[in-house]
Amino acid sequence: MHEFHGIDATLFDLDGTLVSGGIALPWAHQLIEASKGHFAIVTNDAEHTSAEIECLMQMIGLPIKQERIVTAGMEAIRQVAEDMPGAKIAMATSRSLQAYARTCGLYVTDAGPDVVLIGRDRQFSYDTIRFSANAVLAGAKLVICNPDRTHPGPNGTIVPETGALAASILACTGPVEHRVIGKPQPEIFLAGLKLVDSAPSRTLMVGDNPETDGKGAERAGLRFLKIG
Amino acid sequence: MHEFHGIDATLFDLDGTLVSGGIALPWAHQLIEASKGHFAIVTNDAEHTSAEIECLMQMIGLPIKQERIVTAGMEAIRQVAEDMPGAKIAMATSRSLQAYARTCGLYVTDAGPDVVLIGRDRQFSYDTIRFSANAVLAGAKLVICNPDRTHPGPNGTIVPETGALAASILACTGPVEHRVIGKPQPEIFLAGLKLVDSAPSRTLMVGDNPETDGKGAERAGLRFLKIG
Repeated sequence: MHEFHGIDATLFDLDGTLVSGGIALPWAHQLIEASKGHFAIVTNDAEHTSAEIECLMQMIGLPIKQERIVTAGMEAIRQVAEDMPGAKIAMATSRSLQAYARTCGLYVTDAGPDVVLIGRDRQFSYDTIRFSANAVLAGAKLVICNPDRTHPGPNGTIVPETGALAASILACTGPVEHRVIGKPQPEIFLAGLKLVDSAPSRTLMVGDNPETDGKGAERAGLRFLKIG
Repeated sequence: MHEFHGIDATLFDLDGTLVSGGIALPWAHQLIEASKGHFAIVTNDAEHTSAEIECLMQMIGLPIKQERIVTAGMEAIRQVAEDMPGAKIAMATSRSLQAYARTCGLYVTDAGPDVVLIGRDRQFSYDTIRFSANAVLAGAKLVICNPDRTHPGPNGTIVPETGALAASILACTGPVEHRVIGKPQPEIFLAGLKLVDSAPSRTLMVGDNPETDGKGAERAGLRFLKIG
């Protein structure tokens, strides 16, 4: 197994790195051990809260506290709440992320939103596309929780991700300014660094995706180990 | 009003040309008169059957028989039935287009389809994206009824169209070979020409959209009049 030298802390991607298809990967425990407990999870998950992920991880024998988990969905909501306190936000997301937005002081509504936020919404529909595109064309800011278009599903299938849902909205609006929060964008890495209280140059990002984990780590000044 | 010289027949676009927002445009009757009864409708509608459009037109005082109407949705189904008789087809479309596919001898199913056809499906959902993308990745042919991403709705809003729905599926599959049937592709113009039994060079296409009506007419060798 890997030995981590010259680093103070490790950021782990989740899907494809520590878990896959709802089970822990064979090397997950060893990776976590190698980090000597100085680690955080940085995931492009735009559906679950960190509390839900803690629960899921517990069930598969990887006890990781929610305080160590940064998700693209929650980070996007946090950024919106910071930039536009009390904003009216329309959310194509899970209900748990909507509840989280309320705890951040945002006003979740479909009437004249200031912001439209797109996550991995299993209720995504024709009406979501129509509503979101028209709200953005009417002036609402568009925030997309992560750029991923798919992630691997069971038996070689693919699972549609936030980026694919956003594609239909952007097809309607045409090119519009919008914000993507999630790997490879830097915010989520910075949030991870804050959790482990480590300098970028002495922090290792471990992930399976060179496009999101690798490029993002490079941009944020972190070292990168590809796995999986 | 326009006088049509040196032409034998006219093809009309529908939305924005003869009707808008569910009412006849002020020049609609005069345009139809100018064609001296030698006309057909060629529309990128990927939701209604020509029988439904006849009914809608009747209601707004433009009595046009279904036999004169070519739609992108029906033309796409006709092409699939011609190329792959009896094929198993999964359809993201209205129920009336599914019924039409059955009358063309296609077998409408979600189990192991040979073809995935995308129309303007108001029931379009996250599950449609997942199912369609995986079926295409497993080898089903992808047919998109028209490339339009939006059409104008009431009060300056936009209405998502077939092309925007297809964008989310193509975002999942990545670049895959697929067929688009509908303006500006030639098939639908050729079907219109057949209805009016006229040579392209002596046929006028009247439409409001230079991208679909204009470019398509040019490619098919028709003359083009922009209106609206």
